[in-house]
Amino acid sequence: KLPGILERLNAGEVVIGDGGFVFALEKRGYVKAGPWTPEAASEHPEAVRQLHREFLRAGANVMQTFTFYASDDKLENRGNKLTFTGAQINEAACDLAREVANEGDALVAGGVCQTPSYLSCKSEKEVKAILKKQLDVFMKKNVDFLIAEYFEHVEEAVWAVEVLKETGKPVAASMCIGPEGDMHGVSPAECAVRLVKAGAQIVGVNCHFDPLTCVQAVKMMKEGVEKAGLKAHYMVQPLAYHTPDCSCQGFIDLPEFPFGLEPRILSRWDMHKYAREAYNAGIRFIGGCCGFEPYHIRAVAEELAPDRGFLPAASEKHGNWGAGLEMHTKPWVRARARRDYWENLKPASGRPLCPSMSAPDSWGVTKGHKDLMQQKEATSQGQLKTLFDRSKSN
Amino acid sequence: KLPGILERLNAGEVVIGDGGFVFALEKRGYVKAGPWTPEAASEHPEAVRQLHREFLRAGANVMQTFTFYASDDKLENRGNKLTFTGAQINEAACDLAREVANEGDALVAGGVCQTPSYLSCKSEKEVKAILKKQLDVFMKKNVDFLIAEYFEHVEEAVWAVEVLKETGKPVAASMCIGPEGDMHGVSPAECAVRLVKAGAQIVGVNCHFDPLTCVQAVKMMKEGVEKAGLKAHYMVQPLAYHTPDCSCQGFIDLPEFPFGLEPRILSRWDMHKYAREAYNAGIRFIGGCCGFEPYHIRAVAEELAPDRGFLPAASEKHGNWGAGLEMHTKPWVRARARRDYWENLKPASGRPLCPSMSAPDSWGVTKGHKDLMQQKEATSQGQLKTLFDRSKSN
Amino acid sequence: KLPGILERLNAGEVVIGDGGFVFALEKRGYVKAGPWTPEAASEHPEAVRQLHREFLRAGANVMQTFTFYASDDKLENRGNKLTFTGAQINEAACDLAREVANEGDALVAGGVCQTPSYLSCKSEKEVKAILKKQLDVFMKKNVDFLIAEYFEHVEEAVWAVEVLKETGKPVAASMCIGPEGDMHGVSPAECAVRLVKAGAQIVGVNCHFDPLTCVQAVKMMKEGVEKAGLKAHYMVQPLAYHTPDCSCQGFIDLPEFPFGLEPRILSRWDMHKYAREAYNAGIRFIGGCCGFEPYHIRAVAEELAPDRGFLPAASEKHGNWGAGLEMHTKPWVRARARRDYWENLKPASGRPLCPSMSAPDSWGVTKGHKDLMQQKEATSQGQLKTLFDRSKSN
Amino acid sequence: KLPGILERLNAGEVVIGDGGFVFALEKRGYVKAGPWTPEAASEHPEAVRQLHREFLRAGANVMQTFTFYASDDKLENRGNKLTFTGAQINEAACDLAREVANEGDALVAGGVCQTPSYLSCKSEKEVKAILKKQLDVFMKKNVDFLIAEYFEHVEEAVWAVEVLKETGKPVAASMCIGPEGDMHGVSPAECAVRLVKAGAQIVGVNCHFDPLTCVQAVKMMKEGVEKAGLKAHYMVQPLAYHTPDCSCQGFIDLPEFPFGLEPRILSRWDMHKYAREAYNAGIRFIGGCCGFEPYHIRAVAEELAPDRGFLPAASEKHGNWGAGLEMHTKPWVRARARRDYWENLKPASGRPLCPSMSAPDSWGVTKGHKDLMQQKEATSQGQLKTLFDRSKSN
Repeated sequence: KLPGILERLNAGEVVIGDGGFVFALEKRGYVKAGPWTPEAASEHPEAVRQLHREFLRAGANVMQTFTFYASDDKLENRGNKLTFTGAQINEAACDLAREVANEGDALVAGGVCQTPSYLSCKSEKEVKAILKKQLDVFMKKNVDFLIAEYFEHVEEAVWAVEVLKETGKPVAASMCIGPEGDMHGVSPAECAVRLVKAGAQIVGVNCHFDPLTCVQAVKMMKEGVEKAGLKAHYMVQPLAYHTPDCSCQGFIDLPEFPFGLEPRILSRWDMHKYAREAYNAGIRFIGGCCGFEPYHIRAVAEELAPDRGFLPAASEKHGNWGAGLEMHTKPWVRARARRDYWENLKPASGRPLCPSMSAPDSWGVTKGHKDLMQQKEATSQGQLKTLFDRSKSN
Repeated sequence: KLPGILERLNAGEVVIGDGGFVFALEKRGYVKAGPWTPEAASEHPEAVRQLHREFLRAGANVMQTFTFYASDDKLENRGNKLTFTGAQINEAACDLAREVANEGDALVAGGVCQTPSYLSCKSEKEVKAILKKQLDVFMKKNVDFLIAEYFEHVEEAVWAVEVLKETGKPVAASMCIGPEGDMHGVSPAECAVRLVKAGAQIVGVNCHFDPLTCVQAVKMMKEGVEKAGLKAHYMVQPLAYHTPDCSCQGFIDLPEFPFGLEPRILSRWDMHKYAREAYNAGIRFIGGCCGFEPYHIRAVAEELAPDRGFLPAASEKHGNWGAGLEMHTKPWVRARARRDYWENLKPASGRPLCPSMSAPDSWGVTKGHKDLMQQKEATSQGQLKTLFDRSKSN
Repeated sequence: KLPGILERLNAGEVVIGDGGFVFALEKRGYVKAGPWTPEAASEHPEAVRQLHREFLRAGANVMQTFTFYASDDKLENRGNKLTFTGAQINEAACDLAREVANEGDALVAGGVCQTPSYLSCKSEKEVKAILKKQLDVFMKKNVDFLIAEYFEHVEEAVWAVEVLKETGKPVAASMCIGPEGDMHGVSPAECAVRLVKAGAQIVGVNCHFDPLTCVQAVKMMKEGVEKAGLKAHYMVQPLAYHTPDCSCQGFIDLPEFPFGLEPRILSRWDMHKYAREAYNAGIRFIGGCCGFEPYHIRAVAEELAPDRGFLPAASEKHGNWGAGLEMHTKPWVRARARRDYWENLKPASGRPLCPSMSAPDSWGVTKGHKDLMQQKEATSQGQLKTLFDRSKSN
Repeated sequence: KLPGILERLNAGEVVIGDGGFVFALEKRGYVKAGPWTPEAASEHPEAVRQLHREFLRAGANVMQTFTFYASDDKLENRGNKLTFTGAQINEAACDLAREVANEGDALVAGGVCQTPSYLSCKSEKEVKAILKKQLDVFMKKNVDFLIAEYFEHVEEAVWAVEVLKETGKPVAASMCIGPEGDMHGVSPAECAVRLVKAGAQIVGVNCHFDPLTCVQAVKMMKEGVEKAGLKAHYMVQPLAYHTPDCSCQGFIDLPEFPFGLEPRILSRWDMHKYAREAYNAGIRFIGGCCGFEPYHIRAVAEELAPDRGFLPAASEKHGNWGAGLEMHTKPWVRARARRDYWENLKPASGRPLCPSMSAPDSWGVTKGHKDLMQQKEATSQGQLKTLFDRSKSN
């Protein structure tokens, strides 16, 4: 039997997460942007299986069940009638994750996320009941641990942790917030403290912001937890998009979301820097969310190979810091087969008619409303960090 | 029996090609950048099969065998010892293409490309012998037609056409050149004329330049062919990267090649424009090369759906011009569910420390060498077109 | 006799300052970048007189004596031997300011600034003695009020105010700091409180940062003064350069300083926004520093014309919001003669190989020094404000 | 008596022109954008005199009379009633130019430019009569030579040369065209040949395009003249704005014209490169037009100082390649006092919400009109040169 998530983290191991399924499968033709629901687990299992496998090969040792937005209230919400029930989709997702996990040494994590029920002001009882349904599947399928992720409101995240805790499985809790905190302005430190008190053994953030911003938010969580005299492990699963210009709602607010984000995609070299920053911050469960493709996870695994002691399987097809280019036909491309070339490259966009930053949609909303704007300013100052850090390597 | 490629083109149908396998599979962990060889067809058939399937679902009705750089001289060149022989790899690639083609109404195209033998000055006879080996597999596997693609020198392309013609199958010939012509300065018009005279029924360009630049090069081919009183069909399979700043060697020359190209990736809306421009230019075999992911091909198929009369299968997971966003949880994202929003968006790079254009490596080479520089200037003027055209929609 | 500076400010009038002499005269060929000393007052009085006159015509009603860096210790420092003594230069500067002030209704302000003596750790007594020398000239020439400006350290600024107060003239004190405070991290609020307690009737900031950042720093000063139960008037004289990317040392730190700042120059429309923001923040002495040309001050005066009740003389040569273009020869240029066109324009740099932001030199210094970097990050967060505000009109 | 313009050019001397008066004086508050007429010569002679003097100090040895758009038809056109007659304005301009020219060794050039009469289709006789009026003043004031500049149509330029030739004074002819030629598509080569045949001893271009584009256009003129077996001297007086993105109408067409051009202003280091390129192209009358400030002309004179044998007067206030920074207070600024620092700097715009290139207004006009667009593309190819050249030093 494989060591569990807590045994690994307690032993000081680096655990690498997988990347974002909804965005990757949207590009492959199996998920619809807008509803973002995971019915592909039932409809096209071969596509979901293949993506799991690619992340496994890239170095991930957590296979998250493809159950994002798979609560019954969300599935009913999506407009189109589905052929499969929520239970069927959740079960199929568990089976696929387990099948591929067994091809390596990965763990299966059952995942729940924010619910439409909470947003439409349903009661704690109702929200918990919805989450419980997915949990029943996870228990039946015997996942290795549980993740409550992509919560914008700490209150709902705490409820989710409370539900998940009942199973006795290890629980990780991850919010989609940045350094400014949740949608009610609760700071990352305070969010983390509440989640740990509710029983989460691992806390962190995912989605909505770029890697360095997310690492900063988790640092703030860690400081809060330690200051409160509590203990926890930390996780981070950011976007693979540069978002120096977004406000507290994250990339959802950018005019490019979700169909014009291409110029913001991180390179593999940006990922090296991210992995090192996360590691240095004391985070040991390091993965990705929307925008992460298998090669991004591979770059994380390659950066942390000296710390983990091994390279991922997919590195069989990737030279260290571009070394494969030594076999390129053109001599000037062969000259790029070295670390300092890629570390110092400032890649051009090829888009001379486009700017480098956007004004988030929400800025327009507050136009002329001084008070709101000042509040926004006050809460957005953490973002400059990204720019500062980036100056060093991108 | 399905209508063949020439029957389709003669009938005025739009034929949609697939995207670039080496780049897509590099990101998925199955191809090594540098050698760029396709041993994954034998090593990881499930990954290659899945990518074929995604392009099929996206609307492609040509499945190109994953045999790029699969000539024996290239495979021997790659440094690492391979487990499989060239014949095995070529056969596996044919089987995978056929298997998925049969899931829809797609044709299988056997593909050959430029050889190390030509670059190392081997004789016409030797080069033709190398190409003949791959061709023997294609004939054994009974592909539907043949493509000679990614040739930088028209001389080698003509030899390839001459070899392929012996089979009696329809032959397409595609060069990796831009409006400035081949590596010896032979114009696109002249290249096309020679290829048609050698027996190619379809001519065009692939790789090395962005879509609008490639369409322009094919326009020049078409004018040349018509002026010579010849007849042909036209194909185009460009990069999915913006390359307004590259010189005659194309994107190979850009400092970002191949590991920092992310900010240049085309959005799906750029692909709509490309598909329309190609169609308006009289090109009817329209596909993609490096950088194309399944959603890019889907965008081509969606733009041309009114002309073809149907949407691709993958459009089941994609609302027309972003219509799926009507189901998004945030109201301001729902407001983006309209064509003019996406058509007019100028996406930001999120990289304020990076420029919008690069100086190709080759410029450095000629620094201080006035004559060379002036020659380069003289031959690179066609590139401004891209900028002009782009002003309309990006 | 004209009303004095305090009478004007007490009456709620807007007082408009002039622009930066050392940068403007450097471009005209009369000041040397590096030493930045004002010997041109004696050497080329016609050039200094003409610049005064242009600012007067543009709407300035304060003529600052061109005595920046004219303390004896600084003049001796400059390497080249000067033909004129410090006393001669200071006297000539007073005469020129008075001569032009009398052409309109402007006041003459005698100005002192930071001294090399302070930086080389001379005593309070020595520093005050150096400042006293310039002051003697100002009293002899009977300037209308005094400005102690461009101080990086609040301690030296307080000493300067103490010296200037002895004369009984009104005293303004302006530091070259941003929202992060002085070089020892003393906040703008605390700096302002100390300066007011030392006797300054007007406090504010000048130079080093762009207009919106400077306005923010003065807002922080105002909040500090009011919180302390004190009273003061406020002034702001920022750069005419966009500096969203600079750290606490301001534009000195940018790699472009001082000979590559051109792409950062504010347009006249940026100045409209600045003037309105400063006015809305309760600042009533509004001028400019390095980079301001006469047309920038005119734009400030035009924006505030409804509040002041009149346009400046130079508006005889400037149509409101570009109205003069109605007389242009090209019809499409005539179509630009309207406010919303210029308010919404996002001007291109014409420099596709250049980035939009720079990494300040100081970042390189701290590379690898985590502690220093984190400290810098912590102190630089106010700067994002500029980006936010800018999103509305540039 | 000073040697005349032709004696100087025949002797192989470099002659340096002055900068653009209408733009510089607009910023100083004496010229109105839109009409762009030079009544300031009579209204505010001290301002015009001072600008002449600054260019003289910067190294110019031609003082062009400030008589741009001073033909009677243009002055009448401007909407506002003027206090002075056309003759008075032209006379005042001649007096000012002569007064300052005599402060050094400069020549006075009387200048005429395109007329509203030509644009409104008046006859050759009427256009010539209008130009003759200005010429009468120039003869009365005995200018040293004549310049017919800023012509968009070669036909009108030829008429102007024919009028000016009658005086027996040396005649220079300069068109505001780029490599694509005049508004009827007459090539630079053909324009130059016609102008030389009409009697111009010096031909070239001014305004409308950036320096490297203008140098390219003059090169094409020179090739044309030499190919026709004719002889001439060559001049160039470009914009001080980067315009890689403009179409055949030049910067007038850019959305930033004329009030948002700031981010495009050339640095002094860009000017070094321009001066050298112009010199290497065989051009010996090298000056500037709109956007040129005195320090730009000084940079031209400093670059060509080794060729001319002396530095301009204003270099007394400018260290070679930034050497003055050795006296700066901050050590990291002192480290910038070297040539390779400034030659290699890629200056940031400080405008992250703005693009690096614009789409000229005229592109909008032709939207959807394929034929027009293709014609435009065909004629605009010369512009890429700027980008190529710029890659070397900006």
